[in-house]
Amino acid sequence: MGKSNKQNKLKARLPRGFVDRPHFNLAQTQHMLATICEVYQRYGFDSLETPMIEYTDALGKFLPDQDRPNAGVFSFQDDDEQWLSLRYDLTAPLARYVAENYDQLAKPYRSYRVGYVFRNEKPGPGRFRQFMQCDADTVGSAEPTSDAEICMMAADCMTHLGIEQGDYLVRVNSRKILDGVMEAAGLNTENDAQRQLSVLRAIDKLDRVGLHGVEALLGEGRMDESGDFTKGAGLSATQIKPLIDFVSAGTNSAQETMQALEKIIGSSEAGKQGVDELTAMGVLFESAGYGADQILIDPSVVRGLEYYTGAVYEVELLFETVNEKGEKAQFGSVAGGGRYDGLVSRFKGQEVPANGFSIGVSRLQSALSALGRTIGDHEEKGPVVVLVMDKDQLPRYQKMVQVLRANSIRAELYLGSSGMRAQMKYADRRNAPCVIIQGEDERANNSVTIKDLIEGKRLSENIADNETWRSSRPAQVVVSEDNMAKAVIEMLVAQEREQG
Amino acid sequence: MGKSNKQNKLKARLPRGFVDRPHFNLAQTQHMLATICEVYQRYGFDSLETPMIEYTDALGKFLPDQDRPNAGVFSFQDDDEQWLSLRYDLTAPLARYVAENYDQLAKPYRSYRVGYVFRNEKPGPGRFRQFMQCDADTVGSAEPTSDAEICMMAADCMTHLGIEQGDYLVRVNSRKILDGVMEAAGLNTENDAQRQLSVLRAIDKLDRVGLHGVEALLGEGRMDESGDFTKGAGLSATQIKPLIDFVSAGTNSAQETMQALEKIIGSSEAGKQGVDELTAMGVLFESAGYGADQILIDPSVVRGLEYYTGAVYEVELLFETVNEKGEKAQFGSVAGGGRYDGLVSRFKGQEVPANGFSIGVSRLQSALSALGRTIGDHEEKGPVVVLVMDKDQLPRYQKMVQVLRANSIRAELYLGSSGMRAQMKYADRRNAPCVIIQGEDERANNSVTIKDLIEGKRLSENIADNETWRSSRPAQVVVSEDNMAKAVIEMLVAQEREQG
Repeated sequence: MGKSNKQNKLKARLPRGFVDRPHFNLAQTQHMLATICEVYQRYGFDSLETPMIEYTDALGKFLPDQDRPNAGVFSFQDDDEQWLSLRYDLTAPLARYVAENYDQLAKPYRSYRVGYVFRNEKPGPGRFRQFMQCDADTVGSAEPTSDAEICMMAADCMTHLGIEQGDYLVRVNSRKILDGVMEAAGLNTENDAQRQLSVLRAIDKLDRVGLHGVEALLGEGRMDESGDFTKGAGLSATQIKPLIDFVSAGTNSAQETMQALEKIIGSSEAGKQGVDELTAMGVLFESAGYGADQILIDPSVVRGLEYYTGAVYEVELLFETVNEKGEKAQFGSVAGGGRYDGLVSRFKGQEVPANGFSIGVSRLQSALSALGRTIGDHEEKGPVVVLVMDKDQLPRYQKMVQVLRANSIRAELYLGSSGMRAQMKYADRRNAPCVIIQGEDERANNSVTIKDLIEGKRLSENIADNETWRSSRPAQVVVSEDNMAKAVIEMLVAQEREQG
Repeated sequence: MGKSNKQNKLKARLPRGFVDRPHFNLAQTQHMLATICEVYQRYGFDSLETPMIEYTDALGKFLPDQDRPNAGVFSFQDDDEQWLSLRYDLTAPLARYVAENYDQLAKPYRSYRVGYVFRNEKPGPGRFRQFMQCDADTVGSAEPTSDAEICMMAADCMTHLGIEQGDYLVRVNSRKILDGVMEAAGLNTENDAQRQLSVLRAIDKLDRVGLHGVEALLGEGRMDESGDFTKGAGLSATQIKPLIDFVSAGTNSAQETMQALEKIIGSSEAGKQGVDELTAMGVLFESAGYGADQILIDPSVVRGLEYYTGAVYEVELLFETVNEKGEKAQFGSVAGGGRYDGLVSRFKGQEVPANGFSIGVSRLQSALSALGRTIGDHEEKGPVVVLVMDKDQLPRYQKMVQVLRANSIRAELYLGSSGMRAQMKYADRRNAPCVIIQGEDERANNSVTIKDLIEGKRLSENIADNETWRSSRPAQVVVSEDNMAKAVIEMLVAQEREQG
């Protein structure tokens, strides 16, 4: 290695909020996505990929202004001065795609999409500026069956990923029922938008502050344990009652929940429609064999209620884990979605019913890690390394490597210029299951030594702690060169068996 | 569907140079990449993913200036005023990654990367602003064995993709030999850079203008058939001779080729080193069983010679196809690479040997299409569609769908609101293999009708053209509801058998 411009060298670094992903992490993601996409496909969804870049106006919310063109999204101007942006979710591009290809698509159109999205925001722990989403959406169906299918599919995904029944729950609510409850609470005029938002925020704190806390936040306000006072929404007791009844209406029986909701919404048309839709969904869940421990109609779910126009769904993982603060807590939400009939109307000039959901890929992967349910770990296994004992014999070593590969064995020739010790260290760092050695003696006999690195490590550990003596295989074998691949396969099989 | 803001509606369109990719196209890519990555893994390469966005200076060539920040790459400023860019290849990010994690990596470090890259250039036919690459690189090995491994891996990829021996060729050349030839031609002073480039351009036209044409272009110039004159490099006859000898030195025997090259380069140190390296590679190819019809040392390969520092490789497909002009031509290059020892030095301040190659994913996919070797086509098969004959019975239909899915059958419930005729049309557009029908009569008997859409189509075609009468299966069967999944599986198996 020569030396050059040490002075001028550039610092190698990634921009904040971006990460490199090594192979074991990628392999886990790939296996997880393969499982999810198989479920999506089985439900009749077709894959679709749209580009990372769209016209900014097609993305909607984030029209950049000249002063701060990058707020929220990464934006840049094209040669023709039009603004382009990196997509910030997989929903806006779907709307553009459906509008652009409307007549060519068989409707209702079911599609799933997997890909990176970008947020030009302040990064933080677990918050990245590039992250992966995995979405499934149905465009063109107003039927509650379509919402029910998404919920069942979400439950099936969790099951297929090895998450046990009882460890996940798909919670379902409806924007229309909320509208009905707001009507019952006298909060349905045009001037109530701000108060409606305060109500949603109060309900969203149910987990943390409990039912009484929500009640206080809907009324005058709430004093927390530290003595801090949060001002409330200022509703009257008669306004608060239907809201609290709504939030606490959830039971394990869809039928009972719906009866309770029916009472609360009174004569509201929107509310009635919502109740009818959730009732229909409940019947479908039951007849298809999904229990209340898998999919639950739960009026306390408010996330997304401002955005969605009908049913909303949230996939939560219930098992306990330790959060950033070191406290035990349920893992929480890994996916969510709902019905958003306004999706395509920006382009089409007419409402097109649509619904779907989105999985936060890295969050779900963390959950599977916490559960010890990650798959694809076997790809961490390194290659068999053929050592270079004598450079003159490179062609002979190379041929050994090719023979191993032709037998579907992951293998490589040591390509550095160091001696045996460094080569063994390299093989160790590569997680090699074994190395092939052919020195002068072996060559004279047309044989090779196969050194079992895993058994070797175990033996040396056993000798070190002197605790257990297990029946052990030999840490190395000498075989004829012709039998090398066969002997390696036997060694790999034995290793796999022992690792169980 | 309501109507809203027809006036204000936005045009749904993609920026130029970007494409949406439907499921059958994606499935082909996925299967192709899975095959390639399996070969890479078998050669000991580990996957790595770097983000789409890097600091512009880390990417190197394309430092944007304020006047035209987007020339060549898509660039934008971060909050802290630093320039960010979308990566334009997978090599510059690898260099940044290796430099940033140098001490943690077991070296020589083998990695492969698959992902989109972006070019802010004028799009054209087959030229996109977002496209996929699939690269493999070894960092930290100066050994010719490392170059030989990449070439063998390239050949193995082609074989595993189903491209027959004789239809592909990995051509190998060396920058160092070219340097030796330039020395022999007296073109190795610092002032010769421009003339060297003219020489490379002349050689690159060998395919089109033949050896005499190249000779003319190296000398005074060349008149083409239309009478147009191209000015030559102005070399003397003694300068031209080694260059022409070099270009025409290729034979099917690596040994003979190397002997010819040795004569041409004379006493050049660089040239000798190049000959030694290619000779070592040739021996490895031979001993590992790769023939000259798979990997060929061919001094006429010049693409990339300005950029690479040692061996260069190019993967060409030799089968004939029709080009854009409607002429028959060899398919041409689908991948290329070489040794570029300067890769990491910008960051590390020291030279780190490196070599690798890159596959143009969409170009290779076109080639496989042309050869009829695309895989993954089966994913075009649509789902079984359960028709909704009676809305009151939705839970029963839904359950049928879930039973099919539980039996690993791709299936969906019709989610629209149209009648039977439209539902059959939908199933047809979805490529459904069959539909499940349960009307009042079937329901009374707890049975379903399974209509075979593929057999149905065949029967109607046969009747229409009245040419052949093949033994046909019934176009529909009635089975008990309990036997539905079994009967569908039998139908799918029969369809698959017939389609061969």
